[in-house]
Amino acid sequence: MSGLNEFPLGEFQLIDWIRQRSAPHLQVPVGIGDDAAVLAPTAGEEVIVTTDMLMDGRHFIVGQTPPELIGRKALAVNLSDIAAMGGRPLAAFISWALPRHTGRDLAQSLYAGMAELAKSFDVAIAGGDTNSWDGPLVISVTLVGETVGGRRILRSGARPGDFIFVTGPLGGSLSGRHLTFTPRVREALDLAQRIEVSSMLDLSDGIASDLRQILNQSGVGATLEARSIPIHADVDHTLAESERLHRALTDGEDFELLFTASPAEAKQLLAHPPQGWRPIHVGMIDTQRGCRIRTENGVETLPPGGWEHSID
Amino acid sequence: MSGLNEFPLGEFQLIDWIRQRSAPHLQVPVGIGDDAAVLAPTAGEEVIVTTDMLMDGRHFIVGQTPPELIGRKALAVNLSDIAAMGGRPLAAFISWALPRHTGRDLAQSLYAGMAELAKSFDVAIAGGDTNSWDGPLVISVTLVGETVGGRRILRSGARPGDFIFVTGPLGGSLSGRHLTFTPRVREALDLAQRIEVSSMLDLSDGIASDLRQILNQSGVGATLEARSIPIHADVDHTLAESERLHRALTDGEDFELLFTASPAEAKQLLAHPPQGWRPIHVGMIDTQRGCRIRTENGVETLPPGGWEHSID
Repeated sequence: MSGLNEFPLGEFQLIDWIRQRSAPHLQVPVGIGDDAAVLAPTAGEEVIVTTDMLMDGRHFIVGQTPPELIGRKALAVNLSDIAAMGGRPLAAFISWALPRHTGRDLAQSLYAGMAELAKSFDVAIAGGDTNSWDGPLVISVTLVGETVGGRRILRSGARPGDFIFVTGPLGGSLSGRHLTFTPRVREALDLAQRIEVSSMLDLSDGIASDLRQILNQSGVGATLEARSIPIHADVDHTLAESERLHRALTDGEDFELLFTASPAEAKQLLAHPPQGWRPIHVGMIDTQRGCRIRTENGVETLPPGGWEHSID
Repeated sequence: MSGLNEFPLGEFQLIDWIRQRSAPHLQVPVGIGDDAAVLAPTAGEEVIVTTDMLMDGRHFIVGQTPPELIGRKALAVNLSDIAAMGGRPLAAFISWALPRHTGRDLAQSLYAGMAELAKSFDVAIAGGDTNSWDGPLVISVTLVGETVGGRRILRSGARPGDFIFVTGPLGGSLSGRHLTFTPRVREALDLAQRIEVSSMLDLSDGIASDLRQILNQSGVGATLEARSIPIHADVDHTLAESERLHRALTDGEDFELLFTASPAEAKQLLAHPPQGWRPIHVGMIDTQRGCRIRTENGVETLPPGGWEHSID
């Protein structure tokens, strides 16, 4: 295995460098080095697939964001999506367009950040596509996982009367946490083992916006309790309390899970919480469509307030 | 469903536009619209995953290459990789970085080219990630398939005495065929049903280069027969015959399959060829390492001559 400073120049050699660092994985009989990878999902389970593309200048800035954290995030956002389906991640596929003159060092640092996170979740880096060009860095990760116990948790299963939970405090992520968050894979598996979760997603655009995905797909409404929304310590403490709440609802990039459960399942969960973390009950699913929030001033409509990237 | 001219501006709307065009697929219980897609591979089969990233200025030129053909190729190269494993493709995941000011029209044309090819191979477009930016177009496609009859065909299975075959004529692809080729998915499935294929890959860098992947991974050598190499009609007819052969061996982007089979299996295949296409016997696997070619001048070493993209 060559040291970093002797690292050779070609794409084939970079792929070899990565392959030499890939640990074998029981469920990946064929990894890097053939036309495609071969995975062996657990018998009886379905396969879960998600993909995210991150671009320099859009999701991070090369030269400002440490490349290890860029690589880490590219995998972490995908782990978060597999968690949101109640799944177990298995294998990651990494495609990148590397800037021609700095690509080699950049690739090694990106890889280091990804590999460390992959290892901590027992995820194989099983393939990808390595390219160099004159453009900015683009990194696209596809993550393949599997269901656990044959159960997939969708956005469409929320029912009136269900409790709404989140896995942790919200807001202020863009000050740094969005690069270092721990995807809630273990929490999702904890939940799947304990109760029947009726719907789930991961919070990327802020709860005020993301909750609507569940409401729309489930054909229900919701009322959140302002005093129950957990505001992250990263949200500026000098702001007025109403502004801090607004940040928690709309900042985005929280990557906590939001999930719902029937009253019976929810009470079971609250009575016997998982080890090491505590589901936070933030509101209820209603029959009345739309999203509301109860503050000390009464119940009011909660506008999405989430951000959406414009194409034009 | 909105018409093309009323197409709305946001990324969410583009995703909706694509979702509305997605046909249901029996093996894709959850497609676009949740945190991740869910696939249901056939019981007892393994899962095959491949991914390719194509970039403007590197693999195509926006403004010169019709966008439908860019989209088509982004999927076709992945279909070719699944074929090379002897697999059946199931579901494609499309991530793209779209140029901000032309992204909407471009995306629709790219999608049209992909969707038509996907349909012809019964492949679902099951997810992806849509972004816009100020950079050039980048498309990354991940394709998930499954083994057929529990058999995966690797590059490492060639044995001395095996016959070497290709599925069609070689060379001259860059004059246009590289954008319009038919990935050899059906041919691979034909083979898998008829004989035991000992090794296989798809020809992307030229047989002189790609064959080495099989030789190295199988620990064997090979001798090709110059007079048996099928030279594609796209190779310039005004060139000398030796130059035309060189083109066939090294041009690349053929996307024909190269495969090997034991003498007994090979004879079976030649005696009972598949319907509609004919495997072409181009050489033999040897015990002597390295790659050789037999011409009218005798046997000589065949240099790789394939192209490799440099990273620095």
